[in-house]
Amino acid sequence: MIIVVSPAATPEDLDVIVRRIEETGRQAHLSVGTERSIIGVIGPDAPELQDMFETLPHVESVHRVTKPYKLVSREFHPANTIVDVGKGVFVGGTELAVMAGPCSIENEDHIVETAKAVQAAGANILRGGAYKPRSSPYAFRGLGEAGLRHLATASAETGMPVITELMSVGDLDAVCRYSDVIQIGARNMQNFILLDEVGKVRKPVMLKRGLSGQIEEWLLAAEYIMAQGNPNVILCERGIRTFETAYRNTFDINAIPLAKELSHLPVIADPSHGTGKVGLVKPVAMGAIAAGADGLMIEVHPNPDHALSDGAQSLTYERFAEMMRSVARIAAAVERTLSGVGASAAAR
Amino acid sequence: MIIVVSPAATPEDLDVIVRRIEETGRQAHLSVGTERSIIGVIGPDAPELQDMFETLPHVESVHRVTKPYKLVSREFHPANTIVDVGKGVFVGGTELAVMAGPCSIENEDHIVETAKAVQAAGANILRGGAYKPRSSPYAFRGLGEAGLRHLATASAETGMPVITELMSVGDLDAVCRYSDVIQIGARNMQNFILLDEVGKVRKPVMLKRGLSGQIEEWLLAAEYIMAQGNPNVILCERGIRTFETAYRNTFDINAIPLAKELSHLPVIADPSHGTGKVGLVKPVAMGAIAAGADGLMIEVHPNPDHALSDGAQSLTYERFAEMMRSVARIAAAVERTLSGVGASAAAR
Amino acid sequence: MIIVVSPAATPEDLDVIVRRIEETGRQAHLSVGTERSIIGVIGPDAPELQDMFETLPHVESVHRVTKPYKLVSREFHPANTIVDVGKGVFVGGTELAVMAGPCSIENEDHIVETAKAVQAAGANILRGGAYKPRSSPYAFRGLGEAGLRHLATASAETGMPVITELMSVGDLDAVCRYSDVIQIGARNMQNFILLDEVGKVRKPVMLKRGLSGQIEEWLLAAEYIMAQGNPNVILCERGIRTFETAYRNTFDINAIPLAKELSHLPVIADPSHGTGKVGLVKPVAMGAIAAGADGLMIEVHPNPDHALSDGAQSLTYERFAEMMRSVARIAAAVERTLSGVGASAAAR
Amino acid sequence: MIIVVSPAATPEDLDVIVRRIEETGRQAHLSVGTERSIIGVIGPDAPELQDMFETLPHVESVHRVTKPYKLVSREFHPANTIVDVGKGVFVGGTELAVMAGPCSIENEDHIVETAKAVQAAGANILRGGAYKPRSSPYAFRGLGEAGLRHLATASAETGMPVITELMSVGDLDAVCRYSDVIQIGARNMQNFILLDEVGKVRKPVMLKRGLSGQIEEWLLAAEYIMAQGNPNVILCERGIRTFETAYRNTFDINAIPLAKELSHLPVIADPSHGTGKVGLVKPVAMGAIAAGADGLMIEVHPNPDHALSDGAQSLTYERFAEMMRSVARIAAAVERTLSGVGASAAAR
Repeated sequence: MIIVVSPAATPEDLDVIVRRIEETGRQAHLSVGTERSIIGVIGPDAPELQDMFETLPHVESVHRVTKPYKLVSREFHPANTIVDVGKGVFVGGTELAVMAGPCSIENEDHIVETAKAVQAAGANILRGGAYKPRSSPYAFRGLGEAGLRHLATASAETGMPVITELMSVGDLDAVCRYSDVIQIGARNMQNFILLDEVGKVRKPVMLKRGLSGQIEEWLLAAEYIMAQGNPNVILCERGIRTFETAYRNTFDINAIPLAKELSHLPVIADPSHGTGKVGLVKPVAMGAIAAGADGLMIEVHPNPDHALSDGAQSLTYERFAEMMRSVARIAAAVERTLSGVGASAAAR
Repeated sequence: MIIVVSPAATPEDLDVIVRRIEETGRQAHLSVGTERSIIGVIGPDAPELQDMFETLPHVESVHRVTKPYKLVSREFHPANTIVDVGKGVFVGGTELAVMAGPCSIENEDHIVETAKAVQAAGANILRGGAYKPRSSPYAFRGLGEAGLRHLATASAETGMPVITELMSVGDLDAVCRYSDVIQIGARNMQNFILLDEVGKVRKPVMLKRGLSGQIEEWLLAAEYIMAQGNPNVILCERGIRTFETAYRNTFDINAIPLAKELSHLPVIADPSHGTGKVGLVKPVAMGAIAAGADGLMIEVHPNPDHALSDGAQSLTYERFAEMMRSVARIAAAVERTLSGVGASAAAR
Repeated sequence: MIIVVSPAATPEDLDVIVRRIEETGRQAHLSVGTERSIIGVIGPDAPELQDMFETLPHVESVHRVTKPYKLVSREFHPANTIVDVGKGVFVGGTELAVMAGPCSIENEDHIVETAKAVQAAGANILRGGAYKPRSSPYAFRGLGEAGLRHLATASAETGMPVITELMSVGDLDAVCRYSDVIQIGARNMQNFILLDEVGKVRKPVMLKRGLSGQIEEWLLAAEYIMAQGNPNVILCERGIRTFETAYRNTFDINAIPLAKELSHLPVIADPSHGTGKVGLVKPVAMGAIAAGADGLMIEVHPNPDHALSDGAQSLTYERFAEMMRSVARIAAAVERTLSGVGASAAAR
Repeated sequence: MIIVVSPAATPEDLDVIVRRIEETGRQAHLSVGTERSIIGVIGPDAPELQDMFETLPHVESVHRVTKPYKLVSREFHPANTIVDVGKGVFVGGTELAVMAGPCSIENEDHIVETAKAVQAAGANILRGGAYKPRSSPYAFRGLGEAGLRHLATASAETGMPVITELMSVGDLDAVCRYSDVIQIGARNMQNFILLDEVGKVRKPVMLKRGLSGQIEEWLLAAEYIMAQGNPNVILCERGIRTFETAYRNTFDINAIPLAKELSHLPVIADPSHGTGKVGLVKPVAMGAIAAGADGLMIEVHPNPDHALSDGAQSLTYERFAEMMRSVARIAAAVERTLSGVGASAAAR
């Protein structure tokens, strides 16, 4: 940490700052300059120190020089992490992860049929929501545990691993029982209680970036999970909130290469939420794979105009299959592969 | 709801849309125009309909014409709600609510001493955190239930009602036992599970606006609480996240008069989080009261440079007392009062 | 400037950085640490250096320690600047500046009548646009020089100084001939050519903050004007662009006390643009004065539903007069005054 | 336009609104509903009407149903526009436009050498700034007309067309004399005077999206140019300003497919400004091409650590050539080509 002190500070003022640093068990390294004096703080960093030092008289600014996360950092773990999500599927390797399915699970037939359709088009993980975060208390909030059972049926019928969102600590056991991957949604990126709890199990966790989550905060949220002992974390960029109103969210493609540079964890792109508009899902999916994403999460529904949620961003089976053929060409250009069925579908 | 249809739509295309509207049990009122056709949807609104209709062929846009919230709306409840927080303090009436105290409760002496200091300067509600949301898993996360007990002691010694943040459903009973008001923090504005649960008790709840929470989403979050039966909701504007990096958050003063226009619920201003900088707390507090806020939430610490959290935005006792004298003058100008002790302090 | 070097750098790598610093004519002060090495750059700062140093191998980050502006900085000019705008009106002193009038000048009668109405209610500077920046090329773009002449007539009839927007270097002479204050609009905050030119005259310039202008950029834009020799600069906060769609812009109240802390220049608040909604103008105007603004800029129109621009945020004469009475009470609470007519109007 | 009226409106109130609509020469089509009444406005749209109607008593909201731009709209011009920039290069066809070169032209040798290097790697248009918008008045602001002459020399030596930024109407003749394409920078997206003037010449104009420019505003800015008679407009997405501080700007990949859906104009991606970080330029360039961009604008400098501007986002010759090889593979996957030299470079 580096402390910049205003030119108005006297030697006695500098002493006050140095003593406060030493009280915290760290050493101070003072460089008196003509315009500003600079004090280097030698010793372990701690989140609260920056705030404390900023409050001292004559301190103009405090600059951190180390990253606040360790376990998620590529600095401490240079190789890519590959997460085994079960049933033969891995996230973060050469083969892309393609998670597809409906926003909400509506009934057993609906999820089983959709599972088969997305698998035929090249998806290798089935998504479906049983617990749905909705802005309005009057909207459909998901089937709950019944939905999880339908999801498990679809998994059994297709052999695909499944992912579903967990919103509440109280549902952790149920979700772990039926699902292969636990999704933490954007609104819960900083639900630290939930992060702690999914850190205590060993199920893979996919952590979505919050609507206004900075990259550093997102990685710190992942650090929460890893700090409890669960190394199986997958990141997911799903669009951020900006001033632009032409789309629901602004997909942040910069986040993909930067998250992969700063961290060893795999990064998935969600262009369905990242755009909120059917017409933009395919081009943004292609862009994300070209930029280095390790996979996609896509909302698919047989009849988007009857979907109980997120219809405006859900692809039909036909559009999803068409998207997969285009994605397959981009994947080949960046030396990534799609799963067996998808690859052959793409080659057609 | 109004549906705008593209000029390319044929009469058959319009029929498809009309039939879909009728399937939902609503009536369609069609106006064929030269450039665009417009279809009015007659019948109860529902959150998922907009999305559904947007996916229909040739639909260009769908416009909602009613507010998605009812219970929080001033349209359905024209008079101001005044929340009784106990111990003789009301939020939303002529007397301003001034919630002050440390970010985190650090020990019993600390909170008791701070309580007495802020009360002497005119605060009428004591704040203090026992459960702290922190970006980093390695930061101090609060004393938990021990902190709640210290808070209750401070309440008993001063007679002030207290407010503290609830982060987890599992801590609801403890927080209800020791605290007069439950705070839902900005990161949990859309933690819908938590909103449901605090809606089931009758304790007053102060709901902070999320870092990227739109006014409508904030009011819908309040609707979650009221929909479960708890009418005692207080709103709190605490700054939003913008592109500006000169302060931690951007206090949104527009939100105060707008929330009071749209809703009957009281609105508190938190300039400590809304600025993140000690030097800005007083002027922004004064501005918020001038703009119609029903009170303030202010972080106060005897030694901000030793605070375990949020030192950079915490006022010393002296600065808080000085701020209260300035706030008292603004309060008088807008025909609001401060509590007994504060009024006399201000008059000095 | 402080350069933070990654732990991977060898002594030879550090040498490369030190030599590059010395090439620029500055000295390097190296502190080798266990986790990171830090290099202080001793010598005059220059805007391009940060970028240059960031590109050197193993440099993790570069931190500036001095402000990039001088002439606008309170560090170099501790006393408040008071700008004499002519006709007996000063901006930045105890008396508040209240600039009011229509968005666009529509004809001579319109501006003369409005001038008299706003003056009667307490305004002391007349605003009116002759050159209008409009998003659409098909919108009304102002009367041009004819509008300036009408404005001058209104000034002559009331004795009030006037302010009008300059959009183009080609109109500088005309604007200087007819107007007392030159307004640089939000869209031109970084029109550096225009800033240079208004820096070469001595007319007072009011510089609006851009829709996405950071405080530092705003002050640097003011520095452009002062660097050309014009010391008569007034800042104006008029709302920024955020994710919130409930209002046209988000008035940034934090900017007022911060700009006044960092700079000696006066700061005006424009709640008409800062909210874009008639119902919010009065409370936000009151908040801005309470937070320390040196005055207001308010759009007023006799018939907002017939205004050729910005009707939705224009006050009628009656609402403006009512606002002024409320503002007068806040002004008194912060020991500011309104001009003669206004003061007596407020006292009624 | 559709006007939504509050339930409180009486028949007389509705009459007032209808008469105001009729005064503007348009017809009103009233549908009285149980919760809200709706009035359709029949007749030509005009930008100021929305504001006017919003100010009428009992009007809750006004919804536009047509786009405010015509000439740039794909609705009125379904085929892609291909802009001939001269010297055999076209923007918007199958062959990608790759504009590369230094941020600032520093001297003749520098620009000629860089031109040859980027051409060898596959660029087909040379970029270089002679007039530089800089946040600080103390930064290097370009060589001016001398720089334009150096640029023309580099064009003559390589045969490549050139693009350079125009900041001021006063420099229009000079820029037209030496440059093949006029660039309007992000800070000038809404410098309407400049847009008018470049609309009066026939030189191709590349219009960058502003830092906080909404898609609709960007297209309206292009409409300004076309409305003056210049059809040769190219759009350029260069990143927007968001809350994220990990990069200089947030490249908005959604904007590429949406601008191409709404408009027939070609769209170029600028990942140098869109990220501000060397390490992100290549993956974001690849993503942009995969998402449908018609080309790239890339900053290249032989020694970024000596660049007079934008060093932190400039690629060396080697990194640019490496990027082009990767881009070539993505181009092939989306059935786009690179220019002769580039294609063979890519094939190596």
